[in-house]
Amino acid sequence: MSLIVQKFGGTSVGTIERIEGVADKVAKFHGEGHQVVVVVSAMSGETNRLIGLANEIQARPVPREMDVLVSTGEQVTTALLSMALTKRGVKAKSYTGGQVKILTDSAHTKARIQHIDDQNLRADLEAGYVTVVAGFQGVDEKGNITTLGRGGSDTTAVALAAALKADECQIYTDVDGVYTTDPRVVSSAQRLDRITFEEMLEMASMGSKVLQIRAVEFAGKYQVPLRVLHSFQEGPGTLISIEELNDVETPTIAGIAFTRDEAKLTVSGVPDMPGIAYKILGPIGEANIEIDVIVQNVGHDNTTDFTFTVARGDLARAQEILQGVVAEIGAKSVESDSKIAKVSVVGVGMRSHAGVASQMFSALADVGINILMITTSEIKISVIIEEKYLELAVRALHTAFGLDAEPVEE
Amino acid sequence: MSLIVQKFGGTSVGTIERIEGVADKVAKFHGEGHQVVVVVSAMSGETNRLIGLANEIQARPVPREMDVLVSTGEQVTTALLSMALTKRGVKAKSYTGGQVKILTDSAHTKARIQHIDDQNLRADLEAGYVTVVAGFQGVDEKGNITTLGRGGSDTTAVALAAALKADECQIYTDVDGVYTTDPRVVSSAQRLDRITFEEMLEMASMGSKVLQIRAVEFAGKYQVPLRVLHSFQEGPGTLISIEELNDVETPTIAGIAFTRDEAKLTVSGVPDMPGIAYKILGPIGEANIEIDVIVQNVGHDNTTDFTFTVARGDLARAQEILQGVVAEIGAKSVESDSKIAKVSVVGVGMRSHAGVASQMFSALADVGINILMITTSEIKISVIIEEKYLELAVRALHTAFGLDAEPVEE
Repeated sequence: MSLIVQKFGGTSVGTIERIEGVADKVAKFHGEGHQVVVVVSAMSGETNRLIGLANEIQARPVPREMDVLVSTGEQVTTALLSMALTKRGVKAKSYTGGQVKILTDSAHTKARIQHIDDQNLRADLEAGYVTVVAGFQGVDEKGNITTLGRGGSDTTAVALAAALKADECQIYTDVDGVYTTDPRVVSSAQRLDRITFEEMLEMASMGSKVLQIRAVEFAGKYQVPLRVLHSFQEGPGTLISIEELNDVETPTIAGIAFTRDEAKLTVSGVPDMPGIAYKILGPIGEANIEIDVIVQNVGHDNTTDFTFTVARGDLARAQEILQGVVAEIGAKSVESDSKIAKVSVVGVGMRSHAGVASQMFSALADVGINILMITTSEIKISVIIEEKYLELAVRALHTAFGLDAEPVEE
Repeated sequence: MSLIVQKFGGTSVGTIERIEGVADKVAKFHGEGHQVVVVVSAMSGETNRLIGLANEIQARPVPREMDVLVSTGEQVTTALLSMALTKRGVKAKSYTGGQVKILTDSAHTKARIQHIDDQNLRADLEAGYVTVVAGFQGVDEKGNITTLGRGGSDTTAVALAAALKADECQIYTDVDGVYTTDPRVVSSAQRLDRITFEEMLEMASMGSKVLQIRAVEFAGKYQVPLRVLHSFQEGPGTLISIEELNDVETPTIAGIAFTRDEAKLTVSGVPDMPGIAYKILGPIGEANIEIDVIVQNVGHDNTTDFTFTVARGDLARAQEILQGVVAEIGAKSVESDSKIAKVSVVGVGMRSHAGVASQMFSALADVGINILMITTSEIKISVIIEEKYLELAVRALHTAFGLDAEPVEE
């Protein structure tokens, strides 16, 4: 007998019919003798309906009351799923975040979990109940309702799994697992049976569609085995767990990640002197613009070129800020390029395998793709290229690192 | 400065526009220096929408989960009204039943309030907050969410007023007060400035449209002055309070109440022996059919006629039960009449004024109405008459007891 936390998102519980489907799935697990804690989101559309009501009153309503409002969405789902389980002869009990209790700080609309009291849940699990917990919400020390920020139900599930020392935390979603890359770009992309937490985090560009980064970080920190599964299809999904160092079967590269929405800014003719990087990037950071890749070219004539990338949506604002900076530091000009993309190869295996970088560059050279910028981490190598080459690059790398699925024989 | 509890029902908060209107009203009171506790229902239609979702799963869902589900309706309104108040520069804070906390027994969907903790509310009131409390809900000792049964928000308001020793509990509704009788029947009906709790209870037939009986009982028990007011119109409404014995201005009769949905059953040729009333009424009571007026005629030839009234909806079932009883006790027959109505004159003044009954019977005789049955209580006299005379009877009595409004001079 094991203890499993199962999380179902808004789409999975979007209609009464789907809630009945989830009840079937949960009842099956429970019937097999497992203890089951279910975490649910609001029925899809409900959170937006509630936010819409609030916005009829005010564009920026009081955060405390926003939490009181939207937290009802998950509460409704917990009641409905508990009813559907009871109908199937399964003892079930709903829990609000406060009833659990999931203690958070008081940062309304973006609260962080501080402590989970597992006593009530554990007593009900021992008594044979399936416990159905409202995701995304908690209470602060004073009993005020808080929410973890949009989509925070994944975090609730992982935190509950950690507190209850669950054997597995299963995240049901609309994909059947984590893939070597986006199957819409590479049709031969494969579902991974396993991936490490670190790899999952580096695959963020695709992972963000599957799992919340914060939930993965949390799961990694508390070593909660996390499994991504499809809500409506059968299948093993992808298990995200700690690295297995002795597993010689682990392929060097887990997958190819990419993002399209990048833009590049180059400040040229920058006087080459200490502190110049801060003078350029300081004002950008102060404007809450996130900087990704940074490259400083070797200078000529005591000047240098300074290049960095930002999210495409921040380009206009970043450019405006830099106009002022250029004048101030006596640089020559600012140029921008919004037609770029980032491609990364990710894998814990590259730590011990030399040559991944050269293999990557050679694969790109073979298809004639010019690399604009390069950045590396311990388990990831990323290159910035022209956006028009993105799909070509992803396919070439997917093949070069042996990730293509073998064609199914007819 | 006084402490006022204001309750707004589902229709009064049925749209964002109306919630903004309620916020205007509350803000005005708060601006005049009063401490205000607002109790709100779910937006009209919301409770039915939630029940509809549950009924898609099951006709009779688990009561505990039903409470978790429908209690979200009021919670949504508290958040929205708090936002609307904050927008007006009024400090406001929402409260669920559990946050107050309103402690109830564990009778889900029909719980009764056991205790109210006034500490949190009082602290916020002292700090200048308008506190907005979800009506209709509480928590039991174990922290399970309970509801007081449909429309229980009036009860919440009165219970809070009692716990906080409020100066007045104002119930905002879709009428501008309690009337001497139904203005749709008697156009000269007058709004009463004051009425006693006892009279209000006896006026139930009309009162039920204005206030919940349970809330009036509660208010009477704890002597909470209760005022019925119109949600969208200005006006003093009707104050329901304890009897003012020294008030010589109090008219003898407060109003004329009536109900249409009555039916009469007569068991004739009943052997006149002890215990016969129980043999007839026992099985009716066991079937949960409420009996109203009962009359046993003087017998002839050792038999008697036994007549009583029930709600018209229960007539068929009562008749069926009586067929069996008739055979068992050797009575002659069962006759029924569903075309009857009940008219009552109500007033605490009749305690000390003799002659109310004769004045009533004479007024009815003057317009040629035959009385079928009579029943009396300390502050009420009711007669059963043919339904077709109902309006005529109400108008005649309204005039006879001097309740008609003086015609407004043009």
